[in-house]
Amino acid sequence: MEMIKNAVGRNIPSYVDGFGKTDPFMGVNKIEPSGRKAGAKLRMKKGRDTKLVSSLKEAIKLSGLKNGMTISFHHHMRNGDYTVNMVLDVIADLGIKDLTLAPSSLGTCHGPVINHIETGLITGIQSSGLRDPLGTAISQGILPKPVIIRSHGGRARAIEDGELHIDVAFIAAPSCDPMGNINGRSGKSACGSMGYAMVDAQYADCVIAITDNLVPFPNLPASVDQTMVDYVVEVDCIGDPKGIVSGPIRFSDNPRDLLIATNAVKAIVNSGFFADGFVYQTGAAGASLAVTSLLREEMLKRNIKGALGLGGITSQLVTLLEEGLMSGLYDTQSFDLDAVRSIGENPRHYEISASFYANPNLPAPAVNNLDFVMLGALEIDTDFNVNVMTRSDGVINQAIGGHQDTAVGARMSVILAPLIRSRIPIIVDKVTTVCTPGEAVDVICTDYGIAVNPNRQDIIKNFQAAGLPIRSIEELQALAENLTGKPDAVPFTDRIVGLVEYRDRSIIDIIYQSAE
Amino acid sequence: MEMIKNAVGRNIPSYVDGFGKTDPFMGVNKIEPSGRKAGAKLRMKKGRDTKLVSSLKEAIKLSGLKNGMTISFHHHMRNGDYTVNMVLDVIADLGIKDLTLAPSSLGTCHGPVINHIETGLITGIQSSGLRDPLGTAISQGILPKPVIIRSHGGRARAIEDGELHIDVAFIAAPSCDPMGNINGRSGKSACGSMGYAMVDAQYADCVIAITDNLVPFPNLPASVDQTMVDYVVEVDCIGDPKGIVSGPIRFSDNPRDLLIATNAVKAIVNSGFFADGFVYQTGAAGASLAVTSLLREEMLKRNIKGALGLGGITSQLVTLLEEGLMSGLYDTQSFDLDAVRSIGENPRHYEISASFYANPNLPAPAVNNLDFVMLGALEIDTDFNVNVMTRSDGVINQAIGGHQDTAVGARMSVILAPLIRSRIPIIVDKVTTVCTPGEAVDVICTDYGIAVNPNRQDIIKNFQAAGLPIRSIEELQALAENLTGKPDAVPFTDRIVGLVEYRDRSIIDIIYQSAE
Repeated sequence: MEMIKNAVGRNIPSYVDGFGKTDPFMGVNKIEPSGRKAGAKLRMKKGRDTKLVSSLKEAIKLSGLKNGMTISFHHHMRNGDYTVNMVLDVIADLGIKDLTLAPSSLGTCHGPVINHIETGLITGIQSSGLRDPLGTAISQGILPKPVIIRSHGGRARAIEDGELHIDVAFIAAPSCDPMGNINGRSGKSACGSMGYAMVDAQYADCVIAITDNLVPFPNLPASVDQTMVDYVVEVDCIGDPKGIVSGPIRFSDNPRDLLIATNAVKAIVNSGFFADGFVYQTGAAGASLAVTSLLREEMLKRNIKGALGLGGITSQLVTLLEEGLMSGLYDTQSFDLDAVRSIGENPRHYEISASFYANPNLPAPAVNNLDFVMLGALEIDTDFNVNVMTRSDGVINQAIGGHQDTAVGARMSVILAPLIRSRIPIIVDKVTTVCTPGEAVDVICTDYGIAVNPNRQDIIKNFQAAGLPIRSIEELQALAENLTGKPDAVPFTDRIVGLVEYRDRSIIDIIYQSAE
Repeated sequence: MEMIKNAVGRNIPSYVDGFGKTDPFMGVNKIEPSGRKAGAKLRMKKGRDTKLVSSLKEAIKLSGLKNGMTISFHHHMRNGDYTVNMVLDVIADLGIKDLTLAPSSLGTCHGPVINHIETGLITGIQSSGLRDPLGTAISQGILPKPVIIRSHGGRARAIEDGELHIDVAFIAAPSCDPMGNINGRSGKSACGSMGYAMVDAQYADCVIAITDNLVPFPNLPASVDQTMVDYVVEVDCIGDPKGIVSGPIRFSDNPRDLLIATNAVKAIVNSGFFADGFVYQTGAAGASLAVTSLLREEMLKRNIKGALGLGGITSQLVTLLEEGLMSGLYDTQSFDLDAVRSIGENPRHYEISASFYANPNLPAPAVNNLDFVMLGALEIDTDFNVNVMTRSDGVINQAIGGHQDTAVGARMSVILAPLIRSRIPIIVDKVTTVCTPGEAVDVICTDYGIAVNPNRQDIIKNFQAAGLPIRSIEELQALAENLTGKPDAVPFTDRIVGLVEYRDRSIIDIIYQSAE
């Protein structure tokens, strides 16, 4: 097997069984797209009948689903999702095999997928996220083909350029009318934005809406509309509300998270980019949430207003919008009840597709507008490469999400991470799996100080001018290793169980089967 | 030349110079689509710069526009549009020739296009509408290639299936931010819905926004968004507000129009389809507007509520929405200031693309939901075929709009027409140009009575049960001819100057050069 060392130093086989020919990662923004967008199958529905069919089984039969095809799901039901398991059970009844499962992400609730892999129903998976127990099973080699891990923008790009062709898209629909106009704003399974589903619905050859809240025509506004949906099926329940969105998430008063967040806000304020009209994204975890609250205080103090909050939207960003501190929100995924409420009532809280959010092959996805993004990490190496996919034992158990996309899009990408997590150092010589290349990672904020990527001398200069202490990443690594010792190398077999694509389709890393 | 008689009895040459091989019209819903949707050129914009360029000339140079390409415009600026003439003048300066002009429609304000035809800049035109003086010039043979006339749904279909490939789309933008997020809701050139532009922006290889109202990022909601727009140009003025939308259009108290409208409302009420949840479209001309007002009274009297008002939206439909008599509006084009206001503040007044509205190759465009549509006619023949494109002297001077699309989509299509117009009978043996096939035309309401297409025995039965007098179309024709005499045949040469496509791409009629 010919191996090519890619731009982050990983050896990539030129050909991988179950995937095909690979393009090694060559650095950010290196692959210019060619050709045209893919297109869904042209189809006509004569007459005025609704699209209601009597059962999921009937809809799947009508869809023409066959052995060897690819099916998709969106993950706005998050860990409350019932739809993937429900649909796979019906497909199993129908005796269909050899499908590729290509959802926008998968969670711990999708453990039953393992059974469908064992029966040969599922032979390939393409997803942004894979968590225990499914991630573990895949790391142990259960799946015939390697999984393909893509970022949210990479997945939209793959769908749009035809790399990922969806035969049948299943859309869990919190509200839906009999013509297939869907939104996520009402119903017991309300999820707010349907940004991931929008891409699937536009490009799939057949779209099946599955709803537990059939409402009268017309259901407006429609996030996915009647021009894309072929069949509508009513079921009892598409998800567990407790797992879909939470009540307002309060940021932790964990002093370590607060320390990290305080460092991050110092970094933002002194970056040179903190000015009226800035664009900002953060996550929904402890330290990230704290950043938004602390940043709000700095905005008020300095009388600075942002243009846009981006990404997964939480109560904290809704507050900024409602207080006039942000002039708009772009929402691909609503994380809490406040975000669901706001997207339903405020036209400046704007629902965008995953493609709009992060697809690199567009004359400007939203991530290109970012000034600041707060990101997490499982591991960071001294080249600033970040792993957000595999645990320190090498097992697949997380999600890339928008990490790759926002890191390169933002003027300053900030990784928030404790120096040590569960007695394991975060900063290592080489990350287990490179998900986001160091080239796109600008600042690391830990509870033990801040490191800046040496390729960002502009930021270093601004931090120094502001008297903000900077440590080298090697210093931070040494600090951690002093406390924990150097971690052991993780043993792998030589069987490939996963490929991590960079957002441009090239392969940034390979995941091998766990040796134990 | 081989000629084939199509399903409305017109002889269609199997090949037309400047068009190619033709498919004769075979009847409604006869051509099932095959293949896939076309796709815009994949393109990437690195970095965070805005899309502002210094001038229209600069934007056109950057677009790569070349001899032989196709350019598009939308007609929401209606007869106040400055954009088409402005862009063509710049293209003329650049010395580019042999372009196809493919706007969604053209009005009387586009007379200067004639000059650009004379210089060889424009060699082909594809449009829903062509009016004097351009229509006359084309009927006189000025254009090298025959014009292609399509309905709004047919144009969206042609763009989506690749028959009409747009190289550069020019979008007149009533409000636009520097990233290219556009809507029609504010600014001195506010037009409300941008439904036609949405299709062009999605499928064109390059999109140039031309705005007289540059607003701060992000401009939300975006009807055409930053993921589609390549360049943004600021100009003084994109249109004359007086020509774009009007103040509330009051329905005429012309007794003839009221008589026609009264007949139409009787037809609706007694059709058997007038029930809760009905879907309705009408136009913005005298009799059509009167229908909505009279219908409102019937709705109140009978306590019937509609689901949806559709199409070009006027103050009358906004009133129904705001009074709770309609549960939603689908808007491809806003005709008056009330409609512009409403689309900007009411999420149930929903902006839809021309494709959503009427593209036949979708699993349900909005026209398929129609119960009733009120349509106009220049001529109707005794086979119920309707001409909305050529005057009685055979000269091109109108627009197809959504006529073909709604006629077949609606459960009951109603033509509103006076029996005689300017001393010329409306009902003739053979219409000059078949635009909408009689097969899809159900009821004719005139000031002298109602005729029903014999293929709609269900409607005839319901009208008879209600005691509604019906006349045969031949009776109506005889009545008219008694008053005016039989019109003379119109003389044509044998040179083809236009093809009228049915919405499915087949040719429903040919327009020949005027003989005088």
